[in-house]
Amino acid sequence: MQITTVDSLLEYEIAQTAHFIFHIEAAFHEGHRVLEERLTITPSMKVRHFSDDRSGNRFVRLDAPRGILSINYHAKVEINPLPEQLNLPECPVSNLPDEVLRYLMPSRYCESDSLSRAAQQMFGQLPTGVQRVTAINDWMQTAIEYLPGYNDGHTSAQEVFVQRAGVSRDFAHLGIALCRALNIPARLVVGYVKFAAPPQDFHAVYEAWLDQQWVVFDPTQKASIDKLVRVGTGRDTKDVAFATAFGNVQLLQKTLRIDEAEQSLNTIGQTDAAS
Amino acid sequence: MQITTVDSLLEYEIAQTAHFIFHIEAAFHEGHRVLEERLTITPSMKVRHFSDDRSGNRFVRLDAPRGILSINYHAKVEINPLPEQLNLPECPVSNLPDEVLRYLMPSRYCESDSLSRAAQQMFGQLPTGVQRVTAINDWMQTAIEYLPGYNDGHTSAQEVFVQRAGVSRDFAHLGIALCRALNIPARLVVGYVKFAAPPQDFHAVYEAWLDQQWVVFDPTQKASIDKLVRVGTGRDTKDVAFATAFGNVQLLQKTLRIDEAEQSLNTIGQTDAAS
Amino acid sequence: MQITTVDSLLEYEIAQTAHFIFHIEAAFHEGHRVLEERLTITPSMKVRHFSDDRSGNRFVRLDAPRGILSINYHAKVEINPLPEQLNLPECPVSNLPDEVLRYLMPSRYCESDSLSRAAQQMFGQLPTGVQRVTAINDWMQTAIEYLPGYNDGHTSAQEVFVQRAGVSRDFAHLGIALCRALNIPARLVVGYVKFAAPPQDFHAVYEAWLDQQWVVFDPTQKASIDKLVRVGTGRDTKDVAFATAFGNVQLLQKTLRIDEAEQSLNTIGQTDAAS
Amino acid sequence: MQITTVDSLLEYEIAQTAHFIFHIEAAFHEGHRVLEERLTITPSMKVRHFSDDRSGNRFVRLDAPRGILSINYHAKVEINPLPEQLNLPECPVSNLPDEVLRYLMPSRYCESDSLSRAAQQMFGQLPTGVQRVTAINDWMQTAIEYLPGYNDGHTSAQEVFVQRAGVSRDFAHLGIALCRALNIPARLVVGYVKFAAPPQDFHAVYEAWLDQQWVVFDPTQKASIDKLVRVGTGRDTKDVAFATAFGNVQLLQKTLRIDEAEQSLNTIGQTDAAS
Repeated sequence: MQITTVDSLLEYEIAQTAHFIFHIEAAFHEGHRVLEERLTITPSMKVRHFSDDRSGNRFVRLDAPRGILSINYHAKVEINPLPEQLNLPECPVSNLPDEVLRYLMPSRYCESDSLSRAAQQMFGQLPTGVQRVTAINDWMQTAIEYLPGYNDGHTSAQEVFVQRAGVSRDFAHLGIALCRALNIPARLVVGYVKFAAPPQDFHAVYEAWLDQQWVVFDPTQKASIDKLVRVGTGRDTKDVAFATAFGNVQLLQKTLRIDEAEQSLNTIGQTDAAS
Repeated sequence: MQITTVDSLLEYEIAQTAHFIFHIEAAFHEGHRVLEERLTITPSMKVRHFSDDRSGNRFVRLDAPRGILSINYHAKVEINPLPEQLNLPECPVSNLPDEVLRYLMPSRYCESDSLSRAAQQMFGQLPTGVQRVTAINDWMQTAIEYLPGYNDGHTSAQEVFVQRAGVSRDFAHLGIALCRALNIPARLVVGYVKFAAPPQDFHAVYEAWLDQQWVVFDPTQKASIDKLVRVGTGRDTKDVAFATAFGNVQLLQKTLRIDEAEQSLNTIGQTDAAS
Repeated sequence: MQITTVDSLLEYEIAQTAHFIFHIEAAFHEGHRVLEERLTITPSMKVRHFSDDRSGNRFVRLDAPRGILSINYHAKVEINPLPEQLNLPECPVSNLPDEVLRYLMPSRYCESDSLSRAAQQMFGQLPTGVQRVTAINDWMQTAIEYLPGYNDGHTSAQEVFVQRAGVSRDFAHLGIALCRALNIPARLVVGYVKFAAPPQDFHAVYEAWLDQQWVVFDPTQKASIDKLVRVGTGRDTKDVAFATAFGNVQLLQKTLRIDEAEQSLNTIGQTDAAS
Repeated sequence: MQITTVDSLLEYEIAQTAHFIFHIEAAFHEGHRVLEERLTITPSMKVRHFSDDRSGNRFVRLDAPRGILSINYHAKVEINPLPEQLNLPECPVSNLPDEVLRYLMPSRYCESDSLSRAAQQMFGQLPTGVQRVTAINDWMQTAIEYLPGYNDGHTSAQEVFVQRAGVSRDFAHLGIALCRALNIPARLVVGYVKFAAPPQDFHAVYEAWLDQQWVVFDPTQKASIDKLVRVGTGRDTKDVAFATAFGNVQLLQKTLRIDEAEQSLNTIGQTDAAS
């Protein structure tokens, strides 16, 4: 059984009372079981929790007073094995579930409409199914350079397609846009996973709708997605930003510690009982 | 009482079986009462109806065979008077309902993130509340030319801001983007309303969240929004397109007939009874 | 010997006096010899001729009064054979002539700076020289669809790279941008050449600087560039537009008749003597 | 008489032999007289000087070997008083000199074509002449924030128009684009001038063609343009970059020292004689 332990710390300087929406807790999601979790906000203040019943995304809203705000999330999560990615067919548009259709549409950072012809030209003739999505990811591996700091946070899939560099969010946005342009519903997934090389950071991957289910892909291949603690899913980064601040604030620190362990079922059981 | 009668006809040539998602029926919405309605599809075929429980938007999905497809929607709708737009304050972000937050975020055609500084520079110092939204609309009236055919269907708010011309969808997208950039939630509304001058067409307006409610604005001032039969609301045009087709299809005809009448309560009661 | 005969007719409706800059005459260029030419403007009016001594581009400026303006250019041009495109090496930047450097820079419609990484990723590892430029053109042949009417006149290389469709100007702009991004100077060439299929139109190709000379390429492969009557060269379309109008004018007609003939040297000599 | 003394130092680390084009010397220009100047390159190496006879821009090209390259330019320049900016009319397009027409065209960083309607809408109804250019600059003073570091070096006029922030180059590009959109030729000017507040940096302003001459404007109002040592003029930044490097190089240091002095004619004469 895969257990991932997360400790994330965000620290801000607040110039005057600011409203925050944090999205840093493990999602309500059938793919994992939260064994323990703890959210610590300093200074202590009233917060409002809410979750989106469609996605299972969880949010914390608060009004931070002038001064220093720190928010720490600790969780220990048991992650279910991912299904095998073999022989997964695409689903004809006419069979897509109604609630999945929204993930076919272009969004702010995934302009599948603009990239429609490029996607068709590059991947339209390939065998359909999971191997087509894999072909998109393989192409990104060779064509797009993983280059932290190259783009700012406003870079969209179309720009990544031209600029050929980015971080995990950019790779995922481009993968999503290309899938949607091929009539494969796709959505962004953000979460915690250990990178092979530091520094640790929030990670973004994406899911494509294949064989009547969401199947996750990491086009950066920087981490083991079977150990990813899912925080949220959305149309693109704007649905699942880790923090959205309204007001004059400055991020002072972002520190993530992520431990991954494989444990026997027995141990899990005990932990579970204790939590 | 305001009664609006709609007859809309779409006709397509289908080169080979194509999937359609139509979004042309009056929404499930407390602002109106559908007195009668009829959806006629030729040739007769199996369709799937679904609606989005959040927005009340209704959709019809179908697989059209090769040949001619025509879809006609007839409805007679009693429209409730709109609330007065006086003294409506903005709502501080920290008091926005959770489910309204999504309408603060940039979307494909409303890049409020890119337009953030422009919105602040142009409207940031104005008195807040409904008069600020009105100021945005007044500015659009002078700065943006209503010019059918100038933009294609892929024009976004940012492009309209630069190009200074467009149709109702473009005006609405820009109004939405500017509102969101000022932390006023806003969303697109599409529907049927009679234009002063023909030809009739689908219309797009927008709603801003003021005084804890959605308040509708028509920045083009081309029609009487108190007579608008609402078809749907969404983040932008991609959530509420009247028709989305997957396949090789060609629109042959789009004909709208819209009649608006003011009727006494008595008459309404009879019509209602008969429907 | 190759002889190409051109008759081009442009006709405008002028709402009120408008200034025009026409660029429709065969360039002053060592690659061809103008055997005969005639410029006819109706109504008769004062015109100003000028030419750019760097490029040899010729321009006609005039103030057209309200009414109908027609401008007809007739020319018979003997075109020198193009040099063979074999074994042409690229030129190291440090050896580029000073006056060629300008064609390394990005221009309005050839954003070689934005496409820099894409060009390097796609063509950076290929053998250098003419075969690299040929590889760019071969790629465009498969990746970009020749699709008149898809783009408007404001489409730039970066947009063509994303949208994957366009006309000869778009192909040429993209070829130029990719060459410049690889440190190969490149420039636009416009002129008259017979298309295999009507309608005839102005054509755009491009030149790359190889082996210390300008070498011409037609990435659309729609015409025989060895029969092209060169009208002008420039950084991009804005330097060589066939007509630039200042004022309220409307193009009524654009008709090109182009005849290509191979003639014996003897015949040429006679024609030349008679002109 | 105005005397400005410049000492500029650029220092690079060169990973492997790289080609440089420097553009840091006072232009050949009738608006100033170079009293003394000295270009020092370390290590000593062969350089190639060339100048553009149209613009008077001077360039130095060199192949820098692996290691550290430093280039220092020292100059003492007597600057002629600028003409008064009173009652300068615009020039009808039909009267523009042929060689000035190029500055009406959109360029890479000044998309006057895209901004055409916006310029007309905002400034089209104003009284023409120098006061219209002044109105553009006044508008930029209130609408665009001077914000070093906000944009990267690839920001164009259209983006500045949307983003509403930038440095002197961005202000100048936007001013140029708006002028051209109003049929006023405009071009970029770069040079040395003392900023009121450190750090000193290269400065960009622009010239508009008014009353049959180039008239200079500084939309940032950060410096006294009558003390500017002109280095070059061009369509936009790509014509006048201070340094263009081909190869793997890193800027280590950029240090400018600029002294401005008003001197009596007598003193000048002596200095001149001594130089």
